[in-house]
Amino acid sequence: MKDYIIKDEWKIIEDKYVAEHNQITESLLSIGNGKMGQRANYEEQYSGPSLRGSYVAGVYYPDKTRVGWWKNGYPEYFAKVLNSCNWIGIDITVDGEPLDIAKVKVIHEFYRELDMKQGLLSRRMDVTLQNDARLSIDSRRFVSMHNDELGVIEYSITSKNYNGPITIDSYLDFDVVNQDSNYDEQFWNVEQSMAETGNHYVQASTKKTNYTVGVGMENRILWNGKPHNQSTEQIAHPKKSSEKFSHHISEGDTITLCKYAGITSSMNYEVNNIKSKALQIVNHAANYTFDELLANHVRAWSDIWEMCDIKIEGDVSAQQAIRFNIFQLYQTYTGQDDRLNIGPKGFTGEKYGGSTYWDTEAYCLPFYLSTADETVAKNLLIYRYKHLDKAIENAEKLGFTCGAALYPMVTMTGEECHNEWEITFEEIHRNGAIAYAIYDYIRYTGDKSYLSEYGLEVLVAISRFWAQRVNWSQRREQYVMLGVTGPNEYENNVNNNWYTNYIASWCLQYTMEAISLVKEENIDRYHELMKKMDFATGETKKWQHIVDNMYLPQDDTLGICLQQDNFLDKEIIPVADLDKKHRPINQNWSWDRILRSCFIKQADVLQGFYFFEDHFDEDAHRKNYEFYEPITVHESSLSPCVHGILASKLDMEDKAYEMYLRTARLDLDDYNNDTEDGCHITSMAGTWLAIIKGFGGQRIIDDKISFAPNLPSQWNSLSFKIKFRENLLQVNMKMDSSEIINLAGPQLEIIHNGNNIILPKTA
Amino acid sequence: MKDYIIKDEWKIIEDKYVAEHNQITESLLSIGNGKMGQRANYEEQYSGPSLRGSYVAGVYYPDKTRVGWWKNGYPEYFAKVLNSCNWIGIDITVDGEPLDIAKVKVIHEFYRELDMKQGLLSRRMDVTLQNDARLSIDSRRFVSMHNDELGVIEYSITSKNYNGPITIDSYLDFDVVNQDSNYDEQFWNVEQSMAETGNHYVQASTKKTNYTVGVGMENRILWNGKPHNQSTEQIAHPKKSSEKFSHHISEGDTITLCKYAGITSSMNYEVNNIKSKALQIVNHAANYTFDELLANHVRAWSDIWEMCDIKIEGDVSAQQAIRFNIFQLYQTYTGQDDRLNIGPKGFTGEKYGGSTYWDTEAYCLPFYLSTADETVAKNLLIYRYKHLDKAIENAEKLGFTCGAALYPMVTMTGEECHNEWEITFEEIHRNGAIAYAIYDYIRYTGDKSYLSEYGLEVLVAISRFWAQRVNWSQRREQYVMLGVTGPNEYENNVNNNWYTNYIASWCLQYTMEAISLVKEENIDRYHELMKKMDFATGETKKWQHIVDNMYLPQDDTLGICLQQDNFLDKEIIPVADLDKKHRPINQNWSWDRILRSCFIKQADVLQGFYFFEDHFDEDAHRKNYEFYEPITVHESSLSPCVHGILASKLDMEDKAYEMYLRTARLDLDDYNNDTEDGCHITSMAGTWLAIIKGFGGQRIIDDKISFAPNLPSQWNSLSFKIKFRENLLQVNMKMDSSEIINLAGPQLEIIHNGNNIILPKTA
Repeated sequence: MKDYIIKDEWKIIEDKYVAEHNQITESLLSIGNGKMGQRANYEEQYSGPSLRGSYVAGVYYPDKTRVGWWKNGYPEYFAKVLNSCNWIGIDITVDGEPLDIAKVKVIHEFYRELDMKQGLLSRRMDVTLQNDARLSIDSRRFVSMHNDELGVIEYSITSKNYNGPITIDSYLDFDVVNQDSNYDEQFWNVEQSMAETGNHYVQASTKKTNYTVGVGMENRILWNGKPHNQSTEQIAHPKKSSEKFSHHISEGDTITLCKYAGITSSMNYEVNNIKSKALQIVNHAANYTFDELLANHVRAWSDIWEMCDIKIEGDVSAQQAIRFNIFQLYQTYTGQDDRLNIGPKGFTGEKYGGSTYWDTEAYCLPFYLSTADETVAKNLLIYRYKHLDKAIENAEKLGFTCGAALYPMVTMTGEECHNEWEITFEEIHRNGAIAYAIYDYIRYTGDKSYLSEYGLEVLVAISRFWAQRVNWSQRREQYVMLGVTGPNEYENNVNNNWYTNYIASWCLQYTMEAISLVKEENIDRYHELMKKMDFATGETKKWQHIVDNMYLPQDDTLGICLQQDNFLDKEIIPVADLDKKHRPINQNWSWDRILRSCFIKQADVLQGFYFFEDHFDEDAHRKNYEFYEPITVHESSLSPCVHGILASKLDMEDKAYEMYLRTARLDLDDYNNDTEDGCHITSMAGTWLAIIKGFGGQRIIDDKISFAPNLPSQWNSLSFKIKFRENLLQVNMKMDSSEIINLAGPQLEIIHNGNNIILPKTA
Repeated sequence: MKDYIIKDEWKIIEDKYVAEHNQITESLLSIGNGKMGQRANYEEQYSGPSLRGSYVAGVYYPDKTRVGWWKNGYPEYFAKVLNSCNWIGIDITVDGEPLDIAKVKVIHEFYRELDMKQGLLSRRMDVTLQNDARLSIDSRRFVSMHNDELGVIEYSITSKNYNGPITIDSYLDFDVVNQDSNYDEQFWNVEQSMAETGNHYVQASTKKTNYTVGVGMENRILWNGKPHNQSTEQIAHPKKSSEKFSHHISEGDTITLCKYAGITSSMNYEVNNIKSKALQIVNHAANYTFDELLANHVRAWSDIWEMCDIKIEGDVSAQQAIRFNIFQLYQTYTGQDDRLNIGPKGFTGEKYGGSTYWDTEAYCLPFYLSTADETVAKNLLIYRYKHLDKAIENAEKLGFTCGAALYPMVTMTGEECHNEWEITFEEIHRNGAIAYAIYDYIRYTGDKSYLSEYGLEVLVAISRFWAQRVNWSQRREQYVMLGVTGPNEYENNVNNNWYTNYIASWCLQYTMEAISLVKEENIDRYHELMKKMDFATGETKKWQHIVDNMYLPQDDTLGICLQQDNFLDKEIIPVADLDKKHRPINQNWSWDRILRSCFIKQADVLQGFYFFEDHFDEDAHRKNYEFYEPITVHESSLSPCVHGILASKLDMEDKAYEMYLRTARLDLDDYNNDTEDGCHITSMAGTWLAIIKGFGGQRIIDDKISFAPNLPSQWNSLSFKIKFRENLLQVNMKMDSSEIINLAGPQLEIIHNGNNIILPKTA
């Protein structure tokens, strides 16, 4: 755990240059707008530790799978988010010496901040080079939320003592690699590089997938704040286009470069138009100053914050953290494009490749349901609907038939990309979360038509999978599910994982209800769908038999559901008794030792209690929580939030607060020692859940929403807006009391101090 | 399954050129002498499918591990058997056209055979080239059993119609790669290449491991059978040394090249002496004709056959097969060097790398015990004794302490090389086989001193591992062993694999007996060892508690031991009911489907019945066999032999014979469609076991050996020699009768027609 980020309600601040923090800060201070993103790399040369990353949403490369021992069913490729054109590069040379903070003689001042309110990354530094030239640098940049194909940088250099030549080389560079390439390949074919005054452009296409990305650039120079028209040098390298400005600078002079970059891709344009669009964007933008363009961007962010901000009074650390989480989520996904999804690292790193995990449904959906127009959440569901054929193919590769679908563990196109048998083939509970998301969307929005429009086909295909995946145990005279990995990936290939069996059974039940509902509400569509799906009446009979006879392991003495059949054969040791030197176990223990230990990576049985809270009474909640939480090491970023929510519910205030900080400040404090690879974007939605469902006690039953606040004692108040059905609610909470203002209704309505306040649908 | 090899009692014959069989034949007709080996590649150019392979025992490369997802505990490298210098190459060019059977116009005749009695590979072919030149080729080669650093080739070309220029280029080429290199690296640094008349030499060293191999060459030419002294061209390429002979050939002329190669390595010489030794070997050999050198080689083979031949009358297919198995075993391992072991492919291919698997102890040891001097078997045990420190390190990497040892799944040096968590970390029953081998060696040879000399240290370290690997289950009030993979690799990470629990318990018991024995027989050595091993008296107490309270899953209704705890939750379907299109399941089913199916790859519970036959009565044998064999797919080469032995015991004659042919002709008939990668050397010892222990009914109890023959009806008789204690027995069998002649005793002794004939130790 690290603690170098300065606490502030709206800003993420680093006030010292520490080389070994650089890659972490690069992740934390990433900027993005849902369509593209950029790590907080320095514009100028930097020879210290760095992961240079510029990413364009949806553009991926199918990197050849790397395995130790091939297993039948493994996919041929692992989809990689691509490092794309470096559009931020500005090299500074002073009297022949390149500016590189890793190599300067003295650092007089260093300061970086990400202003989350404005979506603005800025930096100030004052350094003396080896040649004794002292310069101060002020840079600001953003990728525009107003025009999502535009990135702008303002870069100022002031001479503090130096008189002599200086060159500024502003460039676009497509000579890039992915850090996580499996075979050290370059994934791009660079097709064009052009350097003419006012028309700098590079274009490249991905190998195999053939996506094209084009980047245009313009530069404007101010000399001591005034426009400057000195001619510049235009250089087209094979993969790079650069504009070079050389001049004599004197003590006190300030040179300001404003760099405009337009980034377009074949995701959105015909290949032939990519170049003209990119140049059009920069040519147009270059008519405006940095501050004019920034103002548009800040207005767009202001609209987002207006809806999704959460205010916490009395706890700067918690306030900073929740805003950081919300900010990164909206930088990653704005919900406007149903081909996109929420990558595990967003635009902050490359790790884990792919774009879509079950995290989207299990963690992110409720965030977008509550804070954005319902089309955003619907787009996330339709994304999976569009992948249904691929999910059926995935299942066929594993031997399933008749329209059974297995959604992938990781994907870009719906095809499975993951290659680790115990995960890819066995962590099948992901199918359950995808069905649950449909249920959650409908109960939240009331949009039952979604079932007949899209949802039912997905539900039936998932249910068909479960019905084939279980088998009848003669010995038990019940259905069992053998060889699965539950949400706790620290057990693999277990039998009868309670969570998986439970959600499978629930899926079958819910699908049968959904079929009835569609039949009731739209008989024509019902017949159409039954025909399309080649649905046999015997299917529901089989499903009902499974639902009625599913084996769910439990221990009556302890009053708990069993994570899997043989869980109680393990030696049960609380994490608290584990010597610190063993933690985290995933870095200190061999895999077999982890597997046979009782230690749990993330909520498993408790994930079921989180999803299906109203299926179990408080006693069951408590017994299961008290059994499982003490043996949970929370080594997944997705663990603390679910435990925090349950702890809130069980009035374990300290635990809930501990879990909250752990999820909320996971990246800011680098809890897992891996923020340098990028931020944990999907778990950030878990942080939001920990507040709204945990401390806020939000519940939805039938068509009603309620809040039962249970705030940490550190917090004076908590307030946020929530969309629910046709209501827009302003929720203000203090410890054990809440006030809800219905912003959409004809008049204000105030409900006060209730532990289980219900706001009727048409309040 | 293929059926193109001509059946013959002593020869493996192919009489047609079929390109798609070439790699299989290359494996089958491999030659070796325990120190080196050579696949049956063509001497001349060949553009068809081929795996060129020349191997030198003990010379390996630690190829960087390739994994999909790294797990703690994985080894850094996978030891690869190395493809070494190509010493057989002889390129023929006729009027500018290279001889290449894949490209000739007509093949008039093609014939290859491996004469196992002589250890001689020969080939005859008669072809017309594209330029209409018709040539016949006769080649013979062997790697000498008399001088194990010598390989010799006789290569004759006869012109059938052609008059014109011909060149013969005989070379050594060290520009070689391994087919199974993980990162397409070359593993050799070629250090020398020299080409002088009578002194051709190349030398290379392995990267990282720094083994040096040197190869010297001499060539002799006969023209129509007479020595020919035409000058030749000497060419030293960077990695290749060649001698080129150019002449005019006329119809009817025969040119014969005799090529001598001397292969030496730093395994056996100081690096500085490798070159002079290699050249000395060839210079000396070149004084002799091919037939003179062959005669020495055949005499060496004759000595081997004298001891280990098995004669089957009435069944050529079975006869050919058993000789092929014995032949390949002795080509692979002669037992003279305790640094070597029995690689899974011997010198016939590269697959599986490494040299040593548990196959050595579980399958190969009894073969060498019975057919060779006891020092050979002892060398195999000492090999493991020498690796004890590494085995302790392996266990430490997985978190074990206090001298617990885990022998590796695959190794060259004792370090684990395998990287697949469910195997590497969990297929720990291998430790049991290594203990069992000590037990087996002692009961077979009577050499109890082995315990105090070497054995006890290994046993104690293995027992320490088991004692730490089990855990006490509160629920069962018994010891359990969680997260293992049994011999049946079609189940992974199971709990309480019966075989593993049983052999672990047996190890603890046997180690306690061994401690007592050493104490009784050699109290000084006992104290010395206890001190060396830092042995605490509490250890045996704990072990006894484990032995007394080990959980062994079984089903009383079925009367069977359970392969693992939850085996009966599986759907039990006989293999016979499985649609042929699914077979083999390891090529047609995804891994998860295999894992949750009931289908068994190789003997698992039955492996325990094979090892510990006298612990169970016939009823238990039958019930377990009848339950498990029908659900066994025998997709491991090690499966049919064990099942064959048990089937013999249970008087299931047809089944035993089916299993015998499957193990014996596995490679000859390419049952598993993978002989092209090399032959299944270790399973060949299983074939021998299937005859001796299966049909022969050999048993050893206390210090007595017995035979209870139960021959297939196809066989008129079976006879073989066996060494047992100080006896050398000639065993002659007919159906249900056997005659044993004690060759070592003072007089012949004949015992007739017994089902349980005991030959006393001092017969």
